[in-house]
Amino acid sequence: MTQKCSAVIIGVGPEQGLGASLADFFSGKGLHVFIAGRSEDKLHKLTDKIGQSGGSATPVVADATVELEVAHLFSKVRLEGFCVDIAAYNVDSNIPSPLLKTDAETFTALWRQNCLGAFFFGKEAVKAMKDRQKGTLFFTGATASLRARPPFTAFASAKAGLRALAQGMAREFSPQGIHVVHTVIDGVIDGERARIRFPDYVKAKGKDGLLQLDAIAETYWAIHQQHPSAWSHELDLRPFKEPF
Amino acid sequence: MTQKCSAVIIGVGPEQGLGASLADFFSGKGLHVFIAGRSEDKLHKLTDKIGQSGGSATPVVADATVELEVAHLFSKVRLEGFCVDIAAYNVDSNIPSPLLKTDAETFTALWRQNCLGAFFFGKEAVKAMKDRQKGTLFFTGATASLRARPPFTAFASAKAGLRALAQGMAREFSPQGIHVVHTVIDGVIDGERARIRFPDYVKAKGKDGLLQLDAIAETYWAIHQQHPSAWSHELDLRPFKEPF
Amino acid sequence: MTQKCSAVIIGVGPEQGLGASLADFFSGKGLHVFIAGRSEDKLHKLTDKIGQSGGSATPVVADATVELEVAHLFSKVRLEGFCVDIAAYNVDSNIPSPLLKTDAETFTALWRQNCLGAFFFGKEAVKAMKDRQKGTLFFTGATASLRARPPFTAFASAKAGLRALAQGMAREFSPQGIHVVHTVIDGVIDGERARIRFPDYVKAKGKDGLLQLDAIAETYWAIHQQHPSAWSHELDLRPFKEPF
Amino acid sequence: MTQKCSAVIIGVGPEQGLGASLADFFSGKGLHVFIAGRSEDKLHKLTDKIGQSGGSATPVVADATVELEVAHLFSKVRLEGFCVDIAAYNVDSNIPSPLLKTDAETFTALWRQNCLGAFFFGKEAVKAMKDRQKGTLFFTGATASLRARPPFTAFASAKAGLRALAQGMAREFSPQGIHVVHTVIDGVIDGERARIRFPDYVKAKGKDGLLQLDAIAETYWAIHQQHPSAWSHELDLRPFKEPF
Repeated sequence: MTQKCSAVIIGVGPEQGLGASLADFFSGKGLHVFIAGRSEDKLHKLTDKIGQSGGSATPVVADATVELEVAHLFSKVRLEGFCVDIAAYNVDSNIPSPLLKTDAETFTALWRQNCLGAFFFGKEAVKAMKDRQKGTLFFTGATASLRARPPFTAFASAKAGLRALAQGMAREFSPQGIHVVHTVIDGVIDGERARIRFPDYVKAKGKDGLLQLDAIAETYWAIHQQHPSAWSHELDLRPFKEPF
Repeated sequence: MTQKCSAVIIGVGPEQGLGASLADFFSGKGLHVFIAGRSEDKLHKLTDKIGQSGGSATPVVADATVELEVAHLFSKVRLEGFCVDIAAYNVDSNIPSPLLKTDAETFTALWRQNCLGAFFFGKEAVKAMKDRQKGTLFFTGATASLRARPPFTAFASAKAGLRALAQGMAREFSPQGIHVVHTVIDGVIDGERARIRFPDYVKAKGKDGLLQLDAIAETYWAIHQQHPSAWSHELDLRPFKEPF
Repeated sequence: MTQKCSAVIIGVGPEQGLGASLADFFSGKGLHVFIAGRSEDKLHKLTDKIGQSGGSATPVVADATVELEVAHLFSKVRLEGFCVDIAAYNVDSNIPSPLLKTDAETFTALWRQNCLGAFFFGKEAVKAMKDRQKGTLFFTGATASLRARPPFTAFASAKAGLRALAQGMAREFSPQGIHVVHTVIDGVIDGERARIRFPDYVKAKGKDGLLQLDAIAETYWAIHQQHPSAWSHELDLRPFKEPF
Repeated sequence: MTQKCSAVIIGVGPEQGLGASLADFFSGKGLHVFIAGRSEDKLHKLTDKIGQSGGSATPVVADATVELEVAHLFSKVRLEGFCVDIAAYNVDSNIPSPLLKTDAETFTALWRQNCLGAFFFGKEAVKAMKDRQKGTLFFTGATASLRARPPFTAFASAKAGLRALAQGMAREFSPQGIHVVHTVIDGVIDGERARIRFPDYVKAKGKDGLLQLDAIAETYWAIHQQHPSAWSHELDLRPFKEPF
C-alpha cells in the first residue's frame, strides 16, 4: 500500500492568513492537508473551503507551544495513513514593546510561540520524514530574524532563536534527505491581520507593496520542488518596493 | 509591435556548464537567448544545440571584463528588437592561491572577472530593463561570497565585492521593478569543469552530491517567476549532503 | 554624597572561570564587585580571595533565571549605595545533544540560562544605569551565537536569542548613554571547566590555544574604557591558532 | 642588535584625519612611525608635529595603489633597521554615485584605493612580520563594508572586498602569529574632511556624535595589546548616538 501524501501546517488562523493560504495552495497541488491552530472555528471554515475547492483537509486543534498537542497532531497524520511531504511552522507572534516595559510573560510567550513551538514541531516533522528520507520542513521567519530593533527586541530574540534552530536542523538533517528551509518574510503580509491592524499602512504601500499570500505560497512550493542536489536553506521574500 | 522576449547570459563556456545550461533551460521556456562568452567555438556549438531543440539563440563573442564588449552585447539585443526578461551574470573565475604567492595580476584578474564585469553587465541590463520596469538580473555567487578562506582569499574578495554590488543594485532598482538576485552556489557544480579538474572529488561525492545543472536552472526560473510582491534577493543552493 | 562605583557580575562559578576572573580583574581596577551565582560556597571563596588582594566584593546568591533573584541582586547594589559601572551577564550553559534526543526540558533550560536570564539581568542593569546615563553592559556569547551546528542546535538557538537581545538593547539604550556589548568567545576558555571536561583537547591545543581568563578580562576592560564617540557593540575573541 | 619597533601607516592625509591621528598616537606609545601618503606636504607637517611632541616619524611619499611604492615603503622600514609592530591600512576613498552614473573609472578607482592597495599593503606587512611571528595588521572598514546601499554601491563593493581580504588573511596568518584586524567604522569621523564636506551634519550630530580621532586610536591600541590567546578579528566602532 502506498502512503498518501500530506502537508502539515501549524499556525493556521484567519482565512486571509499565511497558514490558511499555504494549506489552500498545497491542497490545490494534490496534497491532503492537516491544518492545525488554536481556533476550531477557523480550522473548520478552512476545511470547508478546501473541500469546496475539491481538496481535502483535516483540522486539528493544537497549540504549537504544547508538546503533547504537537505530538498528537503528528500521531493523527500517522494514524490516518499519511506520510508528510511538507511541514510548515507558521506561528508568528509579535508584540512590539520597549524593553523596560516588556515583562517576563511577554518575553517568554514570544519565545514559546516563535521558537519553542518550532522545536516541538520540527522534531515531530523530522520523525515523520526520516524513514522516507524525504520531505520539506519550512520555518517562517521575519525581518527581525536577522536584525533586532526596538521595540521588537523580544520578538527578534525569539525569531533569531528560530533561525538558529532551522540552521542547526538543516545541518543535521539535510544529509538524511530532509530539506529544512528558513524564510525571511521582510515586509508585511497582505492578509486580514494587516488590514485590521494597520489599514493606513496597507493603503500607503499601494499595489504589490505587501506580500501577497499566493505569491509566498508559490515560492514555498518551488522550494519544495527543488532537486536535492541544489537545495536552498534560506531565502528572503520582500515586496519589490520595500526598503531594506 | 510587441517586443520579443529574451534572456541574456554572459559567461557561457562549456556545454556542460552553468551558463550553457541556463541558456538551454530558458530557451526551453520560450525565450530567445543571447549567449555571450569568449570562445566563439563554444557559443556556436550551443547555438546549434539550442536550435536543434527547437529554440533560438544568438551567439555574441564578448569578454565580460571589457566594457565596450558588454555594451555591444546589449546593443545587439536592442537592434534585433528584443527586450530583456532575464539577464544572468555567470562568469566565475577562481584561482586558489596562498596570499603571499598571489600576485597583483591574479588578484586583479579575479576581481575583473567576478566583480567588474558584473558591474558592466548589471548596468547594461538595468538600462535595457528600466523602461519596461521589468526583468530579472541574476548574479551567481559562491560559498566564498560569504566566507573568505585561504587559499581562496583573492577569489573571496572578488565575490564579496560582487555580492555587495548585487545588494546595492537590488536596493536601488527593485523599486523600479527590476528584480536583482544573488545566488550563493555552495558546493561544486556537476559540469565539465569539475569532472576534468577534480574527478576524485566528484566520485567521492556520490549521487546528488554535486549541484546538477538543471536543478540550478529550475530554481533560477522559479525565482524569475516570483510575483513582485514577494521577491527573493538572495538564496543559497547546496547539495543536500554538502556540509556547511 | 558621591555614589561608589561597582561592577555586577552574574554567572560566577569556579575560581578558574570567566565570571570569577572578571570580578577579580574589575576589583583590581578599583571597583567594588557584586558577584552572583548559585553556589554560596564558590562566591565566598572568591569574596575572600578578592579581599586578600585588597579589593572588596559582595557575594549574592542568585539564580539568573529567576527574575526575583536578579531583581534582588540589583536592590542590594542600590541599598548598599552603589551605582553600576559595569554589568556582565556571564551565564553560559551548554549541553551538546542531537536534536531528536533533545527534550523540552533541555531546550528550555538552555534558553532560560543563556537568554531569559540575560533579559532579566539586562533590564535591571539598564534601570540601574539609566539615570546616570552611563555604564557598560556585557553579554558573553559564543561561536554558536553566529552559527548553529549539531549537536549544539539548542545551545545555538539560545545564544542567537541572546545576541539579538543584546543588539536590540544596544539600539535602544546606546543613545541613552548605556554601552551594550556582545562578545563572541570563539574557542575554549582556559579554565577549570575545560581542564576537567576535555583534558586532551586542552593539551592538544598547546600554548595560548585556549582563551586565557585574564586576556578576556583585559579586553572587557578596554571596551569599558571606550569613549562614547567610538563604542564597539560586538567583537570576537579567539585564540590566534583557532580555526574559524 | 635589537630591532627597533615601528608602526607603518598608509593613508595619511590631513592633520585632522585618522591616519595622522593613529601615527601621532602610536608615536606617543613609543613607536617610531612610518607615515605614507600621497601628499609630501602633509607628511612633512605631521613629521614635524610628531617630532615636536618628542616622537619620531619617517615620511614616505607613496600611493597605496601602486605596488612598487608600497614595496618601497616597506623596504625603507627594513633598510632603516625597523621591524613592524603595527601596520595600518587606512586609505578610505568614497564617492557617492547612483549606479547608472557610476563609470568604470570610478568603480575601479574605489576598488583600487579601498581594496587593491590593501592587498599590496597587507602582503608587505605580512612579509615584514612573519619572521618575528608577531605584529598587528589593521584594515579600516566602514558601515558599507557590511551593507551596500545606493548611492554607495561602488564604495560598498570595494569595502566588502576589503573585508573579505582581511578575513581570509586572518584565517591564513593568525596561526603564524600575525593579528589581522578589520574595523567597521560606523559613523562619521570627526576630522577635517567631515567638517569641510558636511558642516551641517557635524553640527546636527552634537557632542560625541562623530567618532573622535583619539577614541578610535585608543581602541586600535587596545586591540594591538590583546594577548594572542584572545584576539579580536572584527569590531565595530560607532558613536553612541548613531542609529544602526
